[in-house]
Amino acid sequence: MRDLLGGKGANIAEMSRVLGAERVPAGFTITTEACVTVMEADGEWPAGLEAEVEKAITALEGSTARGLGDPADPLLVSVRSGARVSMPGMLDTVLNLGLNDGSVAGLAERAGNERFAWDSYRRFTQMFGNVVHGIAGERYEEAIAAAKAERGVKLDTELDAAALRELTERFKAIYSEETGEELPGDPRRQLRDAIAAVFSSWGNDRAVEYRRLNRIPDRWGTAVNVQQMVFGNKGEGSGSGVAFTRDEITGASKPSGDYLHDAQGEDVVSGVRNTLDLDEMARLAPQAHAQLLEILGELERHYRDMQDVEFTVEEGRLYLLQTRAAKRPAQAAVRFAVDAVEEGLLDRPGALATIEADKLDALLHPTFAADASYEVLARGVAASPGAAKGSIVFTAAEAVERGGESEDVILVRPFTEAEDVAGFAAARGILTSEGGKASHAALVARGMGRPCVVGASDLDIDVAKGEVSVDGKVLSAGELITIDGSTGAITVEDVPLVTPEISDAFQIVLAWADEIRRLKVRTNADNPEDAARARSFGAEGIGLCRTEHMFFGADRDGLVKEMFLAAEEWRRLHASADEDPGDAARARATTVEERFRTALASLEEMQRDDFAGIFRAMSGLPVTIRLLDPPLHEFLPVEHFEAELKALGGRGGRPEELDAARHDLTLARELREANPMLGTRGVRLAVLYPPIYEMQVRAIIEAAAIVARDGGEPPIVEIMLPLIAYETELDEVRELVEGAVAEAQSEIGHDGPYSIGTMLELPRACLVADRIAEHADFFSFGTNDLTQTAIGLSRDDVEGKFIGAYIERGILDRSPFETIDEPGVGELVKLGVEGGRSTNPEIKLGVCGEHGGDPASIEFFDRIGLDYVSCSPYRVPIARVAAAQAVPHD
Amino acid sequence: MRDLLGGKGANIAEMSRVLGAERVPAGFTITTEACVTVMEADGEWPAGLEAEVEKAITALEGSTARGLGDPADPLLVSVRSGARVSMPGMLDTVLNLGLNDGSVAGLAERAGNERFAWDSYRRFTQMFGNVVHGIAGERYEEAIAAAKAERGVKLDTELDAAALRELTERFKAIYSEETGEELPGDPRRQLRDAIAAVFSSWGNDRAVEYRRLNRIPDRWGTAVNVQQMVFGNKGEGSGSGVAFTRDEITGASKPSGDYLHDAQGEDVVSGVRNTLDLDEMARLAPQAHAQLLEILGELERHYRDMQDVEFTVEEGRLYLLQTRAAKRPAQAAVRFAVDAVEEGLLDRPGALATIEADKLDALLHPTFAADASYEVLARGVAASPGAAKGSIVFTAAEAVERGGESEDVILVRPFTEAEDVAGFAAARGILTSEGGKASHAALVARGMGRPCVVGASDLDIDVAKGEVSVDGKVLSAGELITIDGSTGAITVEDVPLVTPEISDAFQIVLAWADEIRRLKVRTNADNPEDAARARSFGAEGIGLCRTEHMFFGADRDGLVKEMFLAAEEWRRLHASADEDPGDAARARATTVEERFRTALASLEEMQRDDFAGIFRAMSGLPVTIRLLDPPLHEFLPVEHFEAELKALGGRGGRPEELDAARHDLTLARELREANPMLGTRGVRLAVLYPPIYEMQVRAIIEAAAIVARDGGEPPIVEIMLPLIAYETELDEVRELVEGAVAEAQSEIGHDGPYSIGTMLELPRACLVADRIAEHADFFSFGTNDLTQTAIGLSRDDVEGKFIGAYIERGILDRSPFETIDEPGVGELVKLGVEGGRSTNPEIKLGVCGEHGGDPASIEFFDRIGLDYVSCSPYRVPIARVAAAQAVPHD
Repeated sequence: MRDLLGGKGANIAEMSRVLGAERVPAGFTITTEACVTVMEADGEWPAGLEAEVEKAITALEGSTARGLGDPADPLLVSVRSGARVSMPGMLDTVLNLGLNDGSVAGLAERAGNERFAWDSYRRFTQMFGNVVHGIAGERYEEAIAAAKAERGVKLDTELDAAALRELTERFKAIYSEETGEELPGDPRRQLRDAIAAVFSSWGNDRAVEYRRLNRIPDRWGTAVNVQQMVFGNKGEGSGSGVAFTRDEITGASKPSGDYLHDAQGEDVVSGVRNTLDLDEMARLAPQAHAQLLEILGELERHYRDMQDVEFTVEEGRLYLLQTRAAKRPAQAAVRFAVDAVEEGLLDRPGALATIEADKLDALLHPTFAADASYEVLARGVAASPGAAKGSIVFTAAEAVERGGESEDVILVRPFTEAEDVAGFAAARGILTSEGGKASHAALVARGMGRPCVVGASDLDIDVAKGEVSVDGKVLSAGELITIDGSTGAITVEDVPLVTPEISDAFQIVLAWADEIRRLKVRTNADNPEDAARARSFGAEGIGLCRTEHMFFGADRDGLVKEMFLAAEEWRRLHASADEDPGDAARARATTVEERFRTALASLEEMQRDDFAGIFRAMSGLPVTIRLLDPPLHEFLPVEHFEAELKALGGRGGRPEELDAARHDLTLARELREANPMLGTRGVRLAVLYPPIYEMQVRAIIEAAAIVARDGGEPPIVEIMLPLIAYETELDEVRELVEGAVAEAQSEIGHDGPYSIGTMLELPRACLVADRIAEHADFFSFGTNDLTQTAIGLSRDDVEGKFIGAYIERGILDRSPFETIDEPGVGELVKLGVEGGRSTNPEIKLGVCGEHGGDPASIEFFDRIGLDYVSCSPYRVPIARVAAAQAVPHD
Repeated sequence: MRDLLGGKGANIAEMSRVLGAERVPAGFTITTEACVTVMEADGEWPAGLEAEVEKAITALEGSTARGLGDPADPLLVSVRSGARVSMPGMLDTVLNLGLNDGSVAGLAERAGNERFAWDSYRRFTQMFGNVVHGIAGERYEEAIAAAKAERGVKLDTELDAAALRELTERFKAIYSEETGEELPGDPRRQLRDAIAAVFSSWGNDRAVEYRRLNRIPDRWGTAVNVQQMVFGNKGEGSGSGVAFTRDEITGASKPSGDYLHDAQGEDVVSGVRNTLDLDEMARLAPQAHAQLLEILGELERHYRDMQDVEFTVEEGRLYLLQTRAAKRPAQAAVRFAVDAVEEGLLDRPGALATIEADKLDALLHPTFAADASYEVLARGVAASPGAAKGSIVFTAAEAVERGGESEDVILVRPFTEAEDVAGFAAARGILTSEGGKASHAALVARGMGRPCVVGASDLDIDVAKGEVSVDGKVLSAGELITIDGSTGAITVEDVPLVTPEISDAFQIVLAWADEIRRLKVRTNADNPEDAARARSFGAEGIGLCRTEHMFFGADRDGLVKEMFLAAEEWRRLHASADEDPGDAARARATTVEERFRTALASLEEMQRDDFAGIFRAMSGLPVTIRLLDPPLHEFLPVEHFEAELKALGGRGGRPEELDAARHDLTLARELREANPMLGTRGVRLAVLYPPIYEMQVRAIIEAAAIVARDGGEPPIVEIMLPLIAYETELDEVRELVEGAVAEAQSEIGHDGPYSIGTMLELPRACLVADRIAEHADFFSFGTNDLTQTAIGLSRDDVEGKFIGAYIERGILDRSPFETIDEPGVGELVKLGVEGGRSTNPEIKLGVCGEHGGDPASIEFFDRIGLDYVSCSPYRVPIARVAAAQAVPHD
């Protein structure tokens, strides 16, 4: 009934059942459906709602034997929100409703406590004004301060009944001043207004923002719970508190909590007074404490999860106001899971289900020391978890020069590009002022496990000047900066960092996950270090090794440019090949051919070493190598060649040098594309420049042979062709690859098994997967690019810009780059799976987009029957747990 | 049986049935399947093929009572190719096979003509050497020339039997010199070699190229027809010819053809001798002529189509060698269709089916005069049909300045962009050195009906210098150039042009099409002129009015830039809106707001007039207006603002001017996108800048009111939202549009019906069409963009570059931008149709991509049940005919 009654409403009902009605204050719940209807009608109540509320309140009056507003023995109620999922502090609440100038006297008499009655009434007028009419809290605080000053006291509790009575009058006056009308004395009217206010609090800014951050749909609405008030502020025998069934930070199996004697619940939450812990409560209210501990155990056993409860002790009697699954940090979640199994509370799948897999990477990365206090300079988007500090550098080159082993540096840039990747490796962390969670900086940083904060738009970064300014403060290169990629915080203080180890409990949880899960988990890795790290985290192979990442790096840059220019010249030569060329043309052809082959030969050597390193790190496991998939323009940026030519002119280059530079610039210009994402990429490159793939294939085969000869267990080589749209493309390029493999194997006299598959990353490929599967040993769904093409979204261009606007306006629940868009992109993956298996039942199916590390997406991939997911190294443990959680269990 | 026997083989069989076996030389056919098997085995014959050929030739020997190579009475055969569809002159043929040193005597004796026998043997040795071993024709021609010189004669026919015998020996010597072996005398061996040569001729360069141009799959293969030779060169009673059942140029109902007395068929085709017409044949061979006319009638009645036949008269007896549907130009096709119905030969659907709809636009555009002769300077891709001539201009501005009514100009550019569109209108034709059939230039030119040649890569265009050079020749601005957009020809000669009118026959054919077709035909038009032209061609409304095209034009350019800059400032202001801004911020907000509103107001006025003009032209018909769908970067090119700033600096602008220019440049830079095709486009714009769509909606509603008030019948307004991916987007923006409509209608006090729909142009939209249809009154499939996203192809970037390479290598049969890619993009359209109708059975469904004017695609759109297609004005008649042809009939 949670959808209809909200979490709290359902909970109250359930608690009454478990603990007995006497432990839970009586009340009733107005459904979320009513809220949605009211919201859609712009606040208008549907016919019948008012009558139903009247019926329910009358029944409550009956069961409690008190009347709302009764001057003799008034029924007081709380009016609280209660959404399907908890949104702590986001929605509004009115307490002590039912008090007016008449009933306050009845309350005083029944409680035998005039001060309590006036304090309650004072609180009600304050909350009603604040919640129902949005009157600023300060107005009331000022009045309290004035009252205290007038009486020369310091604490609220020092105000006596008379003072509180005066204060209540003052609050009523504030109400009239602000709203132009009297505070309603009719409790029915109070109730109606309060319910309406709770409905409308669903739409307040902080609630909308909270939903956006927590991916809660706007259309859910909140329920409203009307419940008899119980009072923790009825003197010495009373109190209020919150309690966790276990330690909420560590997960240790000892209840913890906060208690305030003679106080209402909001005093505990607001932090106005210093709370006591449960041991202290035991001293003050031993009986209630004992009951509470018993009940905590009962609730945990019932809900089979760590609970977070609110309770009140009214004149010695314990009431439970709320219980819910306790939010907990990763270490507590893991500890609870392990203990719960040991205690027989849960079985392993059940215990795993209590863990939020997404949070687990906090257990792998350095973090700010828990007790560290520091001033936040600015905030950005938490893009890659972990904390890092170091001297500011503004360029990748500087990072390489100063960073690495020699010095801790943080790479600070407006945004990053492919050619900055070497700088990532040398830096401890990355900070950008632009971009979102799927920007280049975020993707690469997550892949490499580097802490990263992006989109810190308050930062004004002037790379040329070597300065970053924020709010008038200017930082120069070399100054210390500290970032927390788990929270987005940026500071200039030297915050102490702690590096957690994979705890025993975490190892146990991961072992269970491995027992249970059906999906294999591989990693995306482009170098031996990442591969080794991922393997230590449990990766069962590489699902995506992007060879273009190997083409970057200062030592290769010139060579790679040279190779692509030569390739293009080579292509043009062959396209226009004359049947009987003259001598000059023949000579030129020889030069072009030689230039291309020379560049390829040097790259082949480097690639071979790259692959050998990766193969060693993954020996015995499958390694999927994607052949080159560059957007050409990243390798041949026009700006670079313009600058080269200018520089050459500046230093008085010889005419033939200038000619050559001009020629290169022209080629780069001609190769520039309006939409590189949809241009000469992937396998299209192999059709235009076949020798490039041939070179890569040779390097792979040679590397496998080297590892085998060195006595290592060779990996299971899977060669992946990117950006296939047509089965005929795959057929053609597969032939090319097979030819190159056969040639290389016969040359070096070593052969090993290999398979050839394709990346499914275009909608067309998914639609004709049946045809493509006839030529493929495996499919790997490239859901990043598939998302871009299926939805027509260039991640770089739109993510920072309007995905945010879309989520804010409720058009999107979440970014399709974070969690797979099931009805759209997911449907394509499903069609691809069905099509592929229909013609090739043996085909191996995986996913290598970022979604491979997202728990919600992993659940989907398990459901549609993929064989494995592949994700960045630091997400491997998360994926292992998520894959286990995806397996249905009772 | 055509697929298996090939066109010719099936035809021979059919002809024998219709005309009687005595009219058709006896023979047998080797299937296309055999050819495919042999090709796949690299020339190896499958087991059994040789034995089957032996069996068939033995049977032929039996039925003709002659033996292959029999020295007494030899059977001679022809060995000819025959693919599924005719590929005239592309594949190889060997005639007179069966002759050798022995049988030539028998032939001489049986024919009583020694010269004929040696001439036949001479021809056989020549063809065998040429076809089977690729010996160059010149070697034989030189020998013939030498023989004639030796004997002092001028014509081949003057060589006597002895001379031909000597020549035959010489030819056999040439064979030995070239191949290193004797010309095989064994006729069985000759037959096997000839069959193998025909098989392999399927893979020769000219055949491959022909298939590419005519979209014939490589995998079809050719059949081989072995048929008894008949001789047109047996003296006075013999001859050969080709004939059409009607005039092949005009379609007039009088047979026409070419005849040569005492000659073999290849003499007619080769053009070596001047042929006679059929009237002349009637004088020379009256009986055969009479028989021929009778048979032509018989064949046309049987095949119910205009025929093209080959015949031979051997000693007075008429043989039919081949008949096939006659290729014919558009006017002949139309004339035949009309006459065939009048004659009762065909019903209307049958007559329509004989027309190649794609060719019909030749009937609408100016063409080179049929008898014009001129030297071709270069060739490009025929991108938009029709011929045009004028002075060269190199920029759109120049075209606007000098062109239009005042002077005929041709806009010559490396490529064109959106801002060149005004130049298209002012020019007679467009010529580019880059791009393919779906380049910007081609698309816009076709839309506007301007002749256009693109991708003329031999042209080196230097816009800055104002020169175009080709092959060393340099043309300057102002010089005359003539282009033929139907053939791709470019010349500097003043070729006379003729403008055809829509003939009565064409009108009749179009009227039948309208009777028969189910699909409605609309047009894509952005201005009143195009709309009126399309209506005169029979368009039944506008399926796509692109409002961004109205934003271009010299008079609007500055205003549009201003509007977008203001829009972005406005957005930023609102995104960061403070709850309580200071006075300065408030003042700034007012300025930004005012700037935006002022720009919008001016544009609104212009748009209103644009729409009013279009509405008048389409009064009473539906008009689908697509709200703005710009790639922002086209409106805010960074280069423009860089140039502005530089220019301002150069002329010493004031500091505040420079600041403003710098600010604009920064905005433009920040709005630049890496992949504009996947960026801030379509409805995304409305989410970021709602007032822009509101302005457009007001302009539409005002325009409709103006037309109605002027007494015109208003159009049926359909407002289309582009680039929808999510149903929630449509829901949100639909509300915005409805609000703006209601406001505008109440303001001006005039309301009219309108509907709101969306363009389906993203794969995701097609996959969730069921959800989207709940918010849409119509879908229009934007198959251009759908093709780009589904296949991951940016038309601008890849069409010229590798679509060609893909087709050449057989990976693609045709460009997916020309004819819809059925299994991929077509499947998405189908899913969109099914999804849309599942939740909204009343939804109106159309297509507005370029495919809407392509007959093959139209057939598909009819099959999947769309309601209408929309295409550029000049393709409307083609679409009407194609839509009728799409309707199945018996």
